[in-house]
Amino acid sequence: VINADKSEFNEDQAACCQISIRKREPGLEEDEEWLILCSTQFLTGYYWALFDGHGGPEAAIIASNYLHYCIKQKLEEVVGGITEARPPMHLSGRCVCDSDPQFVEEKHIYAEDLVVGALENAFQECDEVIGQEMEATNQTGGCTALAALYFRGKLYVANAGDSRAILVLKDNVVPMSCEFTPQTERQRIQHLAFLFPKLLDGEFTRFEFPRRLKGDDVGQKVLYRDYFMEGWGYKTVEKADLKYPLVHGHGKQARLLGTLAVSRGLGDHQLKVIDTNIEVKPFLSCIPKVNVFDFALHDIKEDDVLIMATDGLWDVLCDKEVAQTVRSFLAENQTDPHRFSELAKCLVCRARGQKRGHQWMLDDSHEASYDDISVFVIPLHNRDED
Amino acid sequence: VINADKSEFNEDQAACCQISIRKREPGLEEDEEWLILCSTQFLTGYYWALFDGHGGPEAAIIASNYLHYCIKQKLEEVVGGITEARPPMHLSGRCVCDSDPQFVEEKHIYAEDLVVGALENAFQECDEVIGQEMEATNQTGGCTALAALYFRGKLYVANAGDSRAILVLKDNVVPMSCEFTPQTERQRIQHLAFLFPKLLDGEFTRFEFPRRLKGDDVGQKVLYRDYFMEGWGYKTVEKADLKYPLVHGHGKQARLLGTLAVSRGLGDHQLKVIDTNIEVKPFLSCIPKVNVFDFALHDIKEDDVLIMATDGLWDVLCDKEVAQTVRSFLAENQTDPHRFSELAKCLVCRARGQKRGHQWMLDDSHEASYDDISVFVIPLHNRDED
Repeated sequence: VINADKSEFNEDQAACCQISIRKREPGLEEDEEWLILCSTQFLTGYYWALFDGHGGPEAAIIASNYLHYCIKQKLEEVVGGITEARPPMHLSGRCVCDSDPQFVEEKHIYAEDLVVGALENAFQECDEVIGQEMEATNQTGGCTALAALYFRGKLYVANAGDSRAILVLKDNVVPMSCEFTPQTERQRIQHLAFLFPKLLDGEFTRFEFPRRLKGDDVGQKVLYRDYFMEGWGYKTVEKADLKYPLVHGHGKQARLLGTLAVSRGLGDHQLKVIDTNIEVKPFLSCIPKVNVFDFALHDIKEDDVLIMATDGLWDVLCDKEVAQTVRSFLAENQTDPHRFSELAKCLVCRARGQKRGHQWMLDDSHEASYDDISVFVIPLHNRDED
Repeated sequence: VINADKSEFNEDQAACCQISIRKREPGLEEDEEWLILCSTQFLTGYYWALFDGHGGPEAAIIASNYLHYCIKQKLEEVVGGITEARPPMHLSGRCVCDSDPQFVEEKHIYAEDLVVGALENAFQECDEVIGQEMEATNQTGGCTALAALYFRGKLYVANAGDSRAILVLKDNVVPMSCEFTPQTERQRIQHLAFLFPKLLDGEFTRFEFPRRLKGDDVGQKVLYRDYFMEGWGYKTVEKADLKYPLVHGHGKQARLLGTLAVSRGLGDHQLKVIDTNIEVKPFLSCIPKVNVFDFALHDIKEDDVLIMATDGLWDVLCDKEVAQTVRSFLAENQTDPHRFSELAKCLVCRARGQKRGHQWMLDDSHEASYDDISVFVIPLHNRDED
């Protein structure tokens, strides 16, 4: 469900599909391809993803058309290992060294780790493709990416950006992602500027201060943080500290190089800081953090759901408020066959608020979300297993 | 308490002392130093630290003599901000901009953050001093550092290395540190090698494999991880992959560049990989992770203690076993005035085990610790407040 009633262009994109992963017979050589085709079997995965574009919707559109294909491809590359409880040291299944299984066991490598690795590699691959595609068509922009994959009894949620996924279960709420913003990744970003000062081209300071410094501050000791600090210290202000900070602003206003509100995502290969030659991409990461939820370890109830949404929802509603809405809506609408999609609409409408005069307001008279809002509600009960 | 019965040289060092932090009157200029001296007041901190040396005890000795001085110095530099609930934007207390307090509030900066920042800076300062001292005296080696500071109602535990601190409270155990080893910091270390391949001088591969690869593996697809992966994938083995891995081995055997078992600590400025020109120091970090425990938020009972110990203890006893020993020992020895130091001895002896033939064994007939073992037991009840 997407709502872009208030902004000129909708930059959110959504995708969902079934992913069929071709299973190769173990022990077959590449040149026995015809045998593989004869004995093909498929593993099935279920995929949902949200992409929040910036600088135009193009990157989000390519990602929504392409990321599932990258995931399929990366899973097929390792499928021989996924079907074993312990992936073999060699994908071919051959044992070069008698103690191979022991090494895999010692390192605690499970089939699940191959799926996580495939998702990490798929995001990187998709980012490269977007870069090529955007360059070829002379387009710009980027997007965040939040992807959920249900595969062989486990839910994998891969996130790069500031969208969020939570499981709303009967008795508790399980966060399935964390946000990557210039604020949450300040130390990583400052460290890179420390290692490669040229990336700032003399235009930015890597230090963080509580506010932008002014001429009057020079010579005084003011609060600051460097890349290695979680705490704060005081430093004597020099002229160079008056430059614009690499990470600046607070909360939703925090910006990387004064330009971007997220620190991970896909695209943005051509993005430069306005009126400069400074590239933003070196500070961005396309690598997701993957969280795994194993259904075998939980007793899933009928109204348990996965909620995925872009920041348009989470800017105005916290996890707890969303969970309350989910539980009360599903309790009140037990028989409606479309209750899960109705719930998604309900969540979008709550975050969009009501128009009062020129302003959109929430029920509690706080300001409503001005951003695009996209929500998936995915029921977890009665999963088809293959 | 230190036990080095089984090793030729004891490389553990311990330190504890009171730290007096000179408090300056706010608003005084540096040239009014005589006024400051007249009106001097002191804040008191209590300090305990353990240092586990490697490549000789020298770095650990310097650190045990010097780290508390660095901490005192760094705290005095920011003491004007520490005595306020909200540190002022300017250490002088002057308000250059009316909204300064608001910016400090928005960034959630508290006095506690200045103590954390002072500890982070103190470790870095101490590392530099050790580097200069060791170079001047032509000595080598390094050490881990675990430091606890009780200051103004809060306990700060700063850790760089594989020592550990836990709070054993009546009803639960609170971890106050986490370990930094080549395994826990694999991604940081691999990422640095990705950014600066020259650091490996063509002698190491940055990829992780379940075991060291052999000629027979070339051309095959084997399990691997790169810097951006928490999961695993398969890669086709090339000749370059046969090189020794940057991070290799599992558990206590894991080594950085085949050389070091820890990835954070002080010293090691001159350390090179044997028979090469490859420096280890760029991969090491001297920055501690600081954990804070606020006594105002907890009801501390009479037998609640902080346990600090080097890896010699934790290699053979887990948190739970240590907590059990702590609780039963203190319950059985309620009147002994030296019961806390007796408990420390008891923990050391448990980890050292009993000599049976040529082997030292634990009670449960597992192998005992062969490393140096140092333990602090610090009672938390009846703290003097200043």
